[in-house]
Amino acid sequence: MRKLYLFTMVSLDGYFEGEGNDLNWHNVDQEFNNFALGQLSDTGLLIFGRRTYETMKDFWTSPTAFKKDRNTAMLMNKIKKIVFSKTLGRADWKNTTLLRFVSKEQIIKLKKEEGKDIAIFGSSDLSVSFVRLGLIDELRLMINPVLLGKGRSFLAGVKGNPELRLVERRVFKSGNVLLTYRFKVSRK
Amino acid sequence: MRKLYLFTMVSLDGYFEGEGNDLNWHNVDQEFNNFALGQLSDTGLLIFGRRTYETMKDFWTSPTAFKKDRNTAMLMNKIKKIVFSKTLGRADWKNTTLLRFVSKEQIIKLKKEEGKDIAIFGSSDLSVSFVRLGLIDELRLMINPVLLGKGRSFLAGVKGNPELRLVERRVFKSGNVLLTYRFKVSRK
Repeated sequence: MRKLYLFTMVSLDGYFEGEGNDLNWHNVDQEFNNFALGQLSDTGLLIFGRRTYETMKDFWTSPTAFKKDRNTAMLMNKIKKIVFSKTLGRADWKNTTLLRFVSKEQIIKLKKEEGKDIAIFGSSDLSVSFVRLGLIDELRLMINPVLLGKGRSFLAGVKGNPELRLVERRVFKSGNVLLTYRFKVSRK
Repeated sequence: MRKLYLFTMVSLDGYFEGEGNDLNWHNVDQEFNNFALGQLSDTGLLIFGRRTYETMKDFWTSPTAFKKDRNTAMLMNKIKKIVFSKTLGRADWKNTTLLRFVSKEQIIKLKKEEGKDIAIFGSSDLSVSFVRLGLIDELRLMINPVLLGKGRSFLAGVKGNPELRLVERRVFKSGNVLLTYRFKVSRK
């Protein structure tokens, strides 16, 4: 069964977005870009909520993205994607499937398919549903050396005190720290 | 000049308290207790906000604390303490001075005195004032492998994007990760 991991950038105060959807605090450099490309290369399917999907689509189809990070941009466009949304008319980003609601059985079926890992990038609200359904195997938190003071807390509303085990950590020259946790048991 | 550091436990989602002032998620073991005792031994003065002061006083003067962790309990009672509160009638915990408001000059004077480091434990609201006044030299975050979903975000309302530099990290067997950041410049 392939792994489903959740990757997100967070501030020291636990926000994945600053006030007004601010993401300008993301602390990225060449080392980060290399990491992100490697992670993406080991991933066969990306899952997004609607808001993250639109942010990602706008960025990764822009000339800026191709100028800044051509390899990742090419891969982001090519990779299979799913967006969950009840309101989106259609998903017109390349290789994207639009789904209306999360079905545990459907995700388990996807995990049982041959292939590389499955990832959720950001998409905090969607991730809360996935955690509740016990669908996430791994949590990868990239902790930026930043205090925002205000914002949207990562995984707000998550319930049931999911048990986590720290399995890996990596310190970046930029001061980012990547902490990887495994969910201890498959939850119901 | 002696260092003023801020030490706090946080969850992965950036809360220092769960709903209803919940602190039961604190992931402590013998290794944590040894660390805490060592840290306290290098500290000459503790600064608290009113709420943390009362929690600490109630716990560290209780028979439970002496049973669980006698050395730390003895030190916590003996060490010099300051509590900031506009409402507290008097501070009756041993070696505690009650102050009504934060004066930058007074804290700088304390930092210039001979002695061991100065610490703020928890006390998130008070710490926001201290960060604003540029009084904190070091931030020590003990990240617990826990998702709370709800609670009070650490340093909520802090402003000005203080620049931080990661200077140390330590992984505990329990899955806690201690990240230490230095504030990059002394702020006005």
